[in-house]
Amino acid sequence: MSEVMEFELSKEFLERFNQALEEKDNSFIEQSLAGVNSADITSLLYEFDAEQCKYVFSILPTEVDAQILNDLDQDIRESFLQDFTPEELAAYLEYLDSDDGADILYQMSLKKQEEVIKHMENEEKASYILDLLRYEEDVAGGLMAKELMKADVNWSVDRCIEEIRIQAESVTKIFSVYVVDSEGKLLGWTSLKRLVLEDGKTKVADFYDDNIVSVETYMSEEEVAQIMQKYDLESVPVINARGKLVGRITIDDIVDVIMELAEEERQLMTGISADVEEDDTVWMLSKARLPWLIIGMVGGLIGAQFLSIFDADIALIPALAFFIPLITATGGNVGIQSSSIVVQSLANPNVFAGTMLQRLLKVLFVAVVNGVILALMVFGVVMLVNQNQPLAMTVSIALFSVVLLASFMGTVTPLVLDKFGINPALASGPFITTANDLLGLAVYFSVAHMLYNL
Amino acid sequence: MSEVMEFELSKEFLERFNQALEEKDNSFIEQSLAGVNSADITSLLYEFDAEQCKYVFSILPTEVDAQILNDLDQDIRESFLQDFTPEELAAYLEYLDSDDGADILYQMSLKKQEEVIKHMENEEKASYILDLLRYEEDVAGGLMAKELMKADVNWSVDRCIEEIRIQAESVTKIFSVYVVDSEGKLLGWTSLKRLVLEDGKTKVADFYDDNIVSVETYMSEEEVAQIMQKYDLESVPVINARGKLVGRITIDDIVDVIMELAEEERQLMTGISADVEEDDTVWMLSKARLPWLIIGMVGGLIGAQFLSIFDADIALIPALAFFIPLITATGGNVGIQSSSIVVQSLANPNVFAGTMLQRLLKVLFVAVVNGVILALMVFGVVMLVNQNQPLAMTVSIALFSVVLLASFMGTVTPLVLDKFGINPALASGPFITTANDLLGLAVYFSVAHMLYNL
Repeated sequence: MSEVMEFELSKEFLERFNQALEEKDNSFIEQSLAGVNSADITSLLYEFDAEQCKYVFSILPTEVDAQILNDLDQDIRESFLQDFTPEELAAYLEYLDSDDGADILYQMSLKKQEEVIKHMENEEKASYILDLLRYEEDVAGGLMAKELMKADVNWSVDRCIEEIRIQAESVTKIFSVYVVDSEGKLLGWTSLKRLVLEDGKTKVADFYDDNIVSVETYMSEEEVAQIMQKYDLESVPVINARGKLVGRITIDDIVDVIMELAEEERQLMTGISADVEEDDTVWMLSKARLPWLIIGMVGGLIGAQFLSIFDADIALIPALAFFIPLITATGGNVGIQSSSIVVQSLANPNVFAGTMLQRLLKVLFVAVVNGVILALMVFGVVMLVNQNQPLAMTVSIALFSVVLLASFMGTVTPLVLDKFGINPALASGPFITTANDLLGLAVYFSVAHMLYNL
Repeated sequence: MSEVMEFELSKEFLERFNQALEEKDNSFIEQSLAGVNSADITSLLYEFDAEQCKYVFSILPTEVDAQILNDLDQDIRESFLQDFTPEELAAYLEYLDSDDGADILYQMSLKKQEEVIKHMENEEKASYILDLLRYEEDVAGGLMAKELMKADVNWSVDRCIEEIRIQAESVTKIFSVYVVDSEGKLLGWTSLKRLVLEDGKTKVADFYDDNIVSVETYMSEEEVAQIMQKYDLESVPVINARGKLVGRITIDDIVDVIMELAEEERQLMTGISADVEEDDTVWMLSKARLPWLIIGMVGGLIGAQFLSIFDADIALIPALAFFIPLITATGGNVGIQSSSIVVQSLANPNVFAGTMLQRLLKVLFVAVVNGVILALMVFGVVMLVNQNQPLAMTVSIALFSVVLLASFMGTVTPLVLDKFGINPALASGPFITTANDLLGLAVYFSVAHMLYNL
């Protein structure tokens, strides 16, 4: 019954499809894909190379091709589209909403953008797309579609329905009907349901809802996502600086934004510096990972230089060296935990309402509780196993200090990064681990030096 | 113009509102909140305590109270609702969709659930909620709302509009009109737009779309989220095992699911074992962080025991100890990067299409590239700074081996966890760091032992 159930990418089907491609068995390709959701065809095409995909494109209806292009992973689409002529691209754009069309063009050179738009037959859509290309890709203006349903506040319900019949041709999904004044200023909204239920002679002015949440063209995608989530919106109107309705953003685009932001955060947290996936080339994967590894390595080398100051101490009391991994690992773990909690609060600014001082005091309390518990445990174990009181004292005091310091660093670093407009998730990554390693070593050997009177 | 702009939580307003609460100045409270979006009132209420919030609730209309309850953070709501009587709760549920009502009841005891439902006046809604409570909270059945618009395939457009007038009373947002047969089996869908545009005498059977994606009641929220994202759906119908339409899931609920999953992943990755936020108590925050810190500490203590085997070596060549942080940090960083890339592929199963062997081979290549580069750099630096060839050889060979091993561990661990149904993001957390610390130390001192002929 459901399509999800119907179309399974079985190994048998893949082999059969591959065979059809080799034999150019167009009728099999056509029949097996007829009525299949474009998102499923997209998944299928990921299994084949660009040339084979282009062959499938030549068989499928242009409308389906356009949907597949829209579904394709951005990197893959970019390289795939290089083989298409401006005429072909223009034909696809006719079938897409203006925002999806603009998304495809964003990746191209200005010259190619112009050539594609020149070949478009639907002049309204062409002008919509040109309009959208003026905005950055990651602000509300770049996310919005120009296609929307609007009604003049002075119209009657009958007039609305009449106009909607015309507008509806170009709008694939209707969420709200936006109500504007004669100059196009956004006043409020109503629903298609309401229009269906109202009497045909009633004026829109008599029943529309003026309680409306809107965003402005310059707002960042993060802000738009936060607003749509907060108010549970499935679409939001976009207005310009003068309050004129210029577009709308739908929730499916925002879901993509949310996923991208989460992905970006994970990559920052794990020290991957570019947007890579497991199927990228070995060199791309290496390159994305090397910068942070090198930073970590430099940190490690500085640590080695630092430890060499205590050369004689280590030769005298090698047991001091045994606990280096314990100290650095704990510092790293505490730092990452602390920064993670701050990053979370920064992402949901509503929930936490304390001042900076309250925040730091609380972090201090949590650090003291955890630090005391860990220090006592380590003290006990070292006394039991190594039966060496100065060593147990040194390690546990150093551990306690490291927990305190790493908590402080882990809390302050993301806040400072955020102040400077840098993604605070960066602070949960190898950055904080490396810094805390060095800090931990400094504390550890300073404590040792003092306690042992070295 | 836009509400977002209009209602700002300024410090002045907060103080004025606080004063109004103390003076029980009901008219100020009423006027300042009239027409304000419930999500904004919710943000405001986070600044006040439970008793003050309850006072505001007593002044606001029941409908607004119900929306605020729905917006509230789940933990806060749970404790807040303990002061309400079943009668009061029943009154709120009348104003909420069945899924939101069930969400509120999920947190209560069976006995309290029954008492609340007993007091509900709207019997249809009460039976809807009872129905939903049978499902687990995190499967499609627990996410869906019972309110939806459906049309019998044999109806005419006029009949549909007539029925929709009746159904529409209880459905706040219409996305699709689902088409069913006389037994309630889901056949397809149509849109309100289509119904408005079609001639009144046409039968639904003549124009409805049978290409429909649906989910089944038992599907997990992750699966539902993936399907809605893949097909860009703003609502999805839910069917039972017999194909009967039993509810629908809307995208706003799925956005919440996506955010929760991302949050859960971050907490796993950073070693926080419970769902805590910065405004939880010190003890809750400590408790959520301690388990992983203790695991890390135990790892560190095992590391110390392991290093004590090399007691004599370290006393002889203290410089060996200097590079312990470099080795452990690099192992940790490489492990986290590798697991992060696997976790990402597991979340987007479509993109990567290789076998296990291809996957591991690729990981091996990337590790060799990065390992060689890092090892050469470290060799150069140690030769320059320490001018000690055996040491430079030892450190760089160990580093290379650690990069290889940590890549392998970081790739295999999340895959194994996933196989056993454990969230693979766990592998990016302190778990892998601790394991790699020990592994790195073992490799380092084994290499040293061999090269130095100790």
